[in-house]
Amino acid sequence: MIGPIPCRVASANRPDGPFPLNNLPYGVFSDGGAPRCGVAIGDMILDLAACADRGLIADAGCFGAGALNGFMARGRAEWDRVRAALTALLGQGGQGDLPLVPMAAARMHLPFAVAEFTDFYASRHHAFNVGCLFRDPQNALPPQWDHLPIGYNGRASSVVVSGTDIHRPMGQLRGPQGPRFEPTARLDLELELGAVIGADSPLGARIGVDRAEDMIFGYVLLNDWSARDIQAWEYQPLGPFQAKAFATTIGAWIVPQAALEPFRRRGAQRQAPLLPHLQDPRPGFYDLQMGWSLNGQVMARVNHSVMSWSAAQQLAHHASSGCPMRVGDLLGSGTISGPGPDQVGALLEMTRGGAEPVTVAGQTRRFLEDGDRVDLFAHAHGAGYRIGFGPCTGRILPALPDHGPCPEAAGGLS
Amino acid sequence: MIGPIPCRVASANRPDGPFPLNNLPYGVFSDGGAPRCGVAIGDMILDLAACADRGLIADAGCFGAGALNGFMARGRAEWDRVRAALTALLGQGGQGDLPLVPMAAARMHLPFAVAEFTDFYASRHHAFNVGCLFRDPQNALPPQWDHLPIGYNGRASSVVVSGTDIHRPMGQLRGPQGPRFEPTARLDLELELGAVIGADSPLGARIGVDRAEDMIFGYVLLNDWSARDIQAWEYQPLGPFQAKAFATTIGAWIVPQAALEPFRRRGAQRQAPLLPHLQDPRPGFYDLQMGWSLNGQVMARVNHSVMSWSAAQQLAHHASSGCPMRVGDLLGSGTISGPGPDQVGALLEMTRGGAEPVTVAGQTRRFLEDGDRVDLFAHAHGAGYRIGFGPCTGRILPALPDHGPCPEAAGGLS
Repeated sequence: MIGPIPCRVASANRPDGPFPLNNLPYGVFSDGGAPRCGVAIGDMILDLAACADRGLIADAGCFGAGALNGFMARGRAEWDRVRAALTALLGQGGQGDLPLVPMAAARMHLPFAVAEFTDFYASRHHAFNVGCLFRDPQNALPPQWDHLPIGYNGRASSVVVSGTDIHRPMGQLRGPQGPRFEPTARLDLELELGAVIGADSPLGARIGVDRAEDMIFGYVLLNDWSARDIQAWEYQPLGPFQAKAFATTIGAWIVPQAALEPFRRRGAQRQAPLLPHLQDPRPGFYDLQMGWSLNGQVMARVNHSVMSWSAAQQLAHHASSGCPMRVGDLLGSGTISGPGPDQVGALLEMTRGGAEPVTVAGQTRRFLEDGDRVDLFAHAHGAGYRIGFGPCTGRILPALPDHGPCPEAAGGLS
Repeated sequence: MIGPIPCRVASANRPDGPFPLNNLPYGVFSDGGAPRCGVAIGDMILDLAACADRGLIADAGCFGAGALNGFMARGRAEWDRVRAALTALLGQGGQGDLPLVPMAAARMHLPFAVAEFTDFYASRHHAFNVGCLFRDPQNALPPQWDHLPIGYNGRASSVVVSGTDIHRPMGQLRGPQGPRFEPTARLDLELELGAVIGADSPLGARIGVDRAEDMIFGYVLLNDWSARDIQAWEYQPLGPFQAKAFATTIGAWIVPQAALEPFRRRGAQRQAPLLPHLQDPRPGFYDLQMGWSLNGQVMARVNHSVMSWSAAQQLAHHASSGCPMRVGDLLGSGTISGPGPDQVGALLEMTRGGAEPVTVAGQTRRFLEDGDRVDLFAHAHGAGYRIGFGPCTGRILPALPDHGPCPEAAGGLS
């Protein structure tokens, strides 16, 4: 296992910090001016647009943009070249003044324009737990579960960056006198890792799992907020819709796949042989300690390698019909849950559908209450360094009265 | 009922032509140069970019683009202003030479960049027929069917323009010795009308049905190609995914909502009272004769007003959780099927899941075969004129060997 790479930004050399020189995650920030691309290093952001302007890195011509899509679209050879250049620039032999912005003084934006959002169902524990609650233990796991990574198309327009407040959604709920339209009473989180796709594939093309690996630019933390009562009423037969359409929070930093290479690990034991097009030649999971806290109290910790379907397998399945993939596509791993109640990525599982409430700082919780704050976290532990993802946080605000924000105010209707 | 509006383009005055001056559908075309926006009139295309250049219409500054999104984003007041200007320009009192391109000499492109694609399930007949085949008559209609417009997020990247060949998709199919990865054996069409959204709504905003009407720019024909065997294996519990991800064909011409105003009609009788946020103050359907042919033989004819959920109701439901809507969102009506076997919008229903094959030009069909060609059509019949949608056609090609088109060749992976 490689050790920490010494950095001339002192705060990057703390062994427990999330952003050493081994990491170099990409994000989009502003500090008064227009949003532009940067890299997290210690407690600073290296301004990539300024680096390019000053000739510190060869101008990729895409770092002045308010989204990373342009850089992502350049492809893996360019990702590797820029990563090598940044490693040299920030290393202890690096030359030139660095355009650094204190992280504390910067505002983070959505790091890329989400083309489409697809969410999967790849933890066997989660699928079984939820299947028991929505159906029954005999029918918990659908018959295709072990043969393909089950997924559905989510909504890209409601993907927001860490720190965005989430209003409790209204929705149609089943009731004894017929359905009602009310604020959800069963608001939940889902702990996930999101894979960010950095390459297009044309209509009709299938993608092998090995090639799919090369299309993944990096990973973000992802909280797929869910309204379980809306979901229970709506999800048959066409799947979740408004129950998950109101918001999905992602972390502001995209950790490059290269930073996670030393942490590759095999996933859960397979229960059935795979068809050739889904076989993964390499371990497709990571030794990544993940978890989430509620109002500051850690509720669950779980390793990414409990999962059964890797992002590359999911991508290969996604394109197996010839469906084109695009730069900026976001693939949610599915809720990451291990076998124990302190390893689950959703309150639905932890409280068994609300039947067994948990105590958080002296208060009882079945589902999320107004004012609650959820933080996801993830770290890979190297020898003398960590790879962190930064925060993925959201606070629940009360449901909005009437129609919520006025479309006119946003220039939507004119 | 208003009559035909006389036009100085002679071919627009034929009473049975699809594109009279009453229609003015928008599209994107090219004739050797770059794609740009135009309007169909008779058998010609009025070049809107050239009109703006010549000062024939006030320059909206967005007609030189290869997609209508810029114009759509200007909002309803601008749509109305341009429509009035085009009506005057093309009317018999209009002044100035018209920059017309013969339709026969033009190539049509996707008329707008599809932001996200959502598909619904809004014909009670279709939902019942399909529910009987995938489940059973007792469980055919899910309990929420009469209370909300059931929908799911589809895949936007595979929406293609009329005339694009469709390769038979591969997919995972249930088999007696376990699943297989093979070309679909149950390839189907779905006759739909697509609503094109021309306004944004912000995160958290709900949309009333009346306001939703104002956000609809127009309508296109839509064929939601479906692989029924892939669907049967994958769709529980999270809905259709690869079964519908490989291609969705839309017509090249967006018929403005204004052109359909005289044809408003109430939809199917409601079976249950609606919650207030889904109540439609106006008839939300159209007296539109729709249908489809297979290899030139008309297979079904049906009126749009058999449907139970209007596009405005679907849009209101879509945003009911606060999900943001965006310019370029495409909402499929759901398969349009009436009560009779000659009124259904899919082979699945017509052949009862393949059990009762139909004869087409002397050949037997359960599902689509390689080489088959499907054409959708729709017309509203006014007094002395028609509003047409132009073709929505696709031909089935054999499944692609190996991985299909090479991603490298398309510049996707580098």
